[in-house]
Amino acid sequence: MKGEFEFIEGIRRMFPSPQGVTGIGDDCAVITQNGGMETLVSTDMLVEGTHFLMNDISPYNLGWKAAAASFSDIAAMGATPTGSFLAVALPRDLPSGWEDEFLRGYREISDTYGFPLLGGDTCASKGPVCVCVTVLGSAPAGKSRRRNVAVPGDLVCVTGTLGDSAAGLEVILKGLERNENELQLIDRHYLPHPRIAEGKALAGVDGVHAMIDISDGIGSDLCHIIEESGTGAEIDLGSIPLSKSLLQFCEAHHLDPYDFAISGGEDYELLFTVSPLAEPLLEVPHSVIGRITTGSSLIWKGSDRLWSGYRHL
Amino acid sequence: MKGEFEFIEGIRRMFPSPQGVTGIGDDCAVITQNGGMETLVSTDMLVEGTHFLMNDISPYNLGWKAAAASFSDIAAMGATPTGSFLAVALPRDLPSGWEDEFLRGYREISDTYGFPLLGGDTCASKGPVCVCVTVLGSAPAGKSRRRNVAVPGDLVCVTGTLGDSAAGLEVILKGLERNENELQLIDRHYLPHPRIAEGKALAGVDGVHAMIDISDGIGSDLCHIIEESGTGAEIDLGSIPLSKSLLQFCEAHHLDPYDFAISGGEDYELLFTVSPLAEPLLEVPHSVIGRITTGSSLIWKGSDRLWSGYRHL
Repeated sequence: MKGEFEFIEGIRRMFPSPQGVTGIGDDCAVITQNGGMETLVSTDMLVEGTHFLMNDISPYNLGWKAAAASFSDIAAMGATPTGSFLAVALPRDLPSGWEDEFLRGYREISDTYGFPLLGGDTCASKGPVCVCVTVLGSAPAGKSRRRNVAVPGDLVCVTGTLGDSAAGLEVILKGLERNENELQLIDRHYLPHPRIAEGKALAGVDGVHAMIDISDGIGSDLCHIIEESGTGAEIDLGSIPLSKSLLQFCEAHHLDPYDFAISGGEDYELLFTVSPLAEPLLEVPHSVIGRITTGSSLIWKGSDRLWSGYRHL
Repeated sequence: MKGEFEFIEGIRRMFPSPQGVTGIGDDCAVITQNGGMETLVSTDMLVEGTHFLMNDISPYNLGWKAAAASFSDIAAMGATPTGSFLAVALPRDLPSGWEDEFLRGYREISDTYGFPLLGGDTCASKGPVCVCVTVLGSAPAGKSRRRNVAVPGDLVCVTGTLGDSAAGLEVILKGLERNENELQLIDRHYLPHPRIAEGKALAGVDGVHAMIDISDGIGSDLCHIIEESGTGAEIDLGSIPLSKSLLQFCEAHHLDPYDFAISGGEDYELLFTVSPLAEPLLEVPHSVIGRITTGSSLIWKGSDRLWSGYRHL
């Protein structure tokens, strides 16, 4: 099999985007509708052994998390949830009650964030559990946010704290002792909160330009913004918001919190750029971590290390 | 794992449909939009070992067929294609060129039927190939066709000929000799043609009531129509359209063509009901095979056998 990015590049070459559609490459495809609205669609597939291990995640948490990854794509565009479609391939030897618990987690996050389940498919498989979630959202025409519109001079901002999810995964995979901090980090990993309300509020502010959700770490996701916007960026490491749980966990285990905050995946916080004039007016809690520059380099101030994004297992 | 229908029933119970949406149960979910339009969405998952065997199907044919199954859901509602989303989980040890051939088949049917690829996802898997296709279509509000609106007195009609695809599968699975008839049947199995133009034309006729695509055999798909419409039906076996290839193949192998035509899957023809006054006006080629009755029984005239739908491998 080719690498994921190479395969996607092949698809981009073979399938040009039609008129009226912002195609492959952003968090969602954007389809122009009658009535001054856009429909936003995104699809994500999770496979046992690649994205999760059955022994490490409860079916409830898997149901929640599979939905969260897709819901977060709707948040990243600043859209309003329409609903979701759930397709699953399941082995026949699942433990009793597994499906009910999986559906319970899926329903809980769906209810919490206002995504009704609109349809789906289910089939038996001889292989690993495979879950495909497709989400739809809507936004007034031209109001959804893309990755490619950062402007030099913009401030670079994030919601929430970064790195907690990746640190939670570290605790899980290494079987580390679980005290209060570790349990909080694990929760951030298993039960991430897509920033639906925050995304919609940010998209309502004209000065908010590029937006993306942080699924692969800002080291990777910020690259998408600057590459597609044709800009550079300078990030102040000291401004990256870190939770007390992450800091205490890293201190106890002699780990570098920035490894998790920059290269760790699945935070599902929002990364966005905003004009300096509009930033003080934002009502969504956020941290300013740097600014968009001319040129094309990504500079991490306060570190001499090179940072990159997250790769799945 | 529970049976497919039981799992879906569990989903129906746990996830009630929201207002403005015709939810789980039809070929597509129907979402009311601004501007007098509806968006139709369907998602289908195909898994190696359950829906296809890698040794039996070329990657080109798999790409075509995976799309055909979903495109056919848009045809069944009488909608206009908007586009598709493709998610795939692929093992790392695929033969060289496999992905390109898969995408070539997917592109060919997408171009033929006017479904641009709008997005997707791709990931590595340690297990079987898994393909999830989500399709979107649109129709004027209230104009898409459902399963549950057959009326006693309606004629029951189908497009094309039935059973060819299932007979083609028989040839493939049993390794039968492939002469001209067998090759035609195999083509019907590997390269089905979703009836997009036919579905749209039929939905333009007021007297056309219930419609569904034949994915599991009319024995099964007609049951969906009559159960959800609260009607019965009488079918004349002698009126079911059979291809010359199927008849000659069955004669040569001492097989009953109605086994394939009634219980065989994946024809992707349309099954619809129409008022007797409107039927002569239909411009779409079709065969009248019976009529909708009061009551709830499904009667096969011209046979004393019981028929049922198709189950996957």
